[in-house]
Amino acid sequence: MKVAVLLFNNFETLDVFGPVEILGRLPETFEIEYYSLAGGSIRSTQGVSISTLRLAEITLPVDVFLIPGGKGTRQEINNPELVGWIRKIAQSSRYVLTVCTGSALLAKIKELDGKTTTSNKRAFDWVVSVREAVHWRRKARWTVDGTYYTSSGISAGMDITLAFVGDTLGKETAERVATEMEYLWNRDPERDPF
Amino acid sequence: MKVAVLLFNNFETLDVFGPVEILGRLPETFEIEYYSLAGGSIRSTQGVSISTLRLAEITLPVDVFLIPGGKGTRQEINNPELVGWIRKIAQSSRYVLTVCTGSALLAKIKELDGKTTTSNKRAFDWVVSVREAVHWRRKARWTVDGTYYTSSGISAGMDITLAFVGDTLGKETAERVATEMEYLWNRDPERDPF
Repeated sequence: MKVAVLLFNNFETLDVFGPVEILGRLPETFEIEYYSLAGGSIRSTQGVSISTLRLAEITLPVDVFLIPGGKGTRQEINNPELVGWIRKIAQSSRYVLTVCTGSALLAKIKELDGKTTTSNKRAFDWVVSVREAVHWRRKARWTVDGTYYTSSGISAGMDITLAFVGDTLGKETAERVATEMEYLWNRDPERDPF
Repeated sequence: MKVAVLLFNNFETLDVFGPVEILGRLPETFEIEYYSLAGGSIRSTQGVSISTLRLAEITLPVDVFLIPGGKGTRQEINNPELVGWIRKIAQSSRYVLTVCTGSALLAKIKELDGKTTTSNKRAFDWVVSVREAVHWRRKARWTVDGTYYTSSGISAGMDITLAFVGDTLGKETAERVATEMEYLWNRDPERDPF
């Protein structure tokens, strides 16, 4: 499966590299590429710089579209060119995974209208204000509605990615990866202490 | 505090970016730099490429020396030039943090002889074979012995980094960061199900 990770400046480090640690452990299944509007080096809020391809170079459809969150979403949500790309990619990809405030970017294009969805808890009111037609669930570690996987803040991205691996490759594979990572996986989407 | 992260090809992605997510949330305290033997682009086993400075450019001492693990440690342990740099940096830095098999690299320079230490559980026998004079604890999420912080595999790097933040900046700061990350922090170094 071809995985396209959307990057923008001030993305949240772990929103990306938590899921990448998991999908990157299954290279026989997942091929990961990083894209940004202008291409080149993109920097996380925590100062990690990653090299990206230009969105204009992407070959659609992709199988998995991963949208991280972070401070940068507040700016990018008002960037019509980026939002246009999100629409184009999300509408053609098999699965969309969002972490943290990445769900706000997906909500912006109306793709989540009426769908059960969650997001970062500390930014929740802002996220809801982006698009009230979405069925936002405040209390959920993650949600799955059809092919849309949305998770709570930052570290929840690892829990939802393992759940996604379980759904697509089987629970045994997800359990094996979690054990290899010595990760105390929160397997219960309803268990959300935040 | 100046944080030097040691990188080498085939480092484990989350070993680095879990701790970086945490320390990077405290930019008023921690300044993070990435170093490798040759400098330039270094690639994790999961395909993440990071730009690094040459170790020869490092200004010593640093405050925190972070040594990740990963498949690359098997090769680097036999690289005398890299091991020499690890000795020089570890012996002059205030704190050394290792994640996963990073503790094998630190054990190699005899810095851990007689010290209570842990490592990745699936690679444990190999790690012990590197240096038997270390007091290796098989059952521990992480250990602290003086200024040496060593953690179990991969995701345990986040638990130990939060513990380190608690020790140096206070428990409230560590709790705040864990909550911001919506991270189900394993606060108990004795709780190790792996």
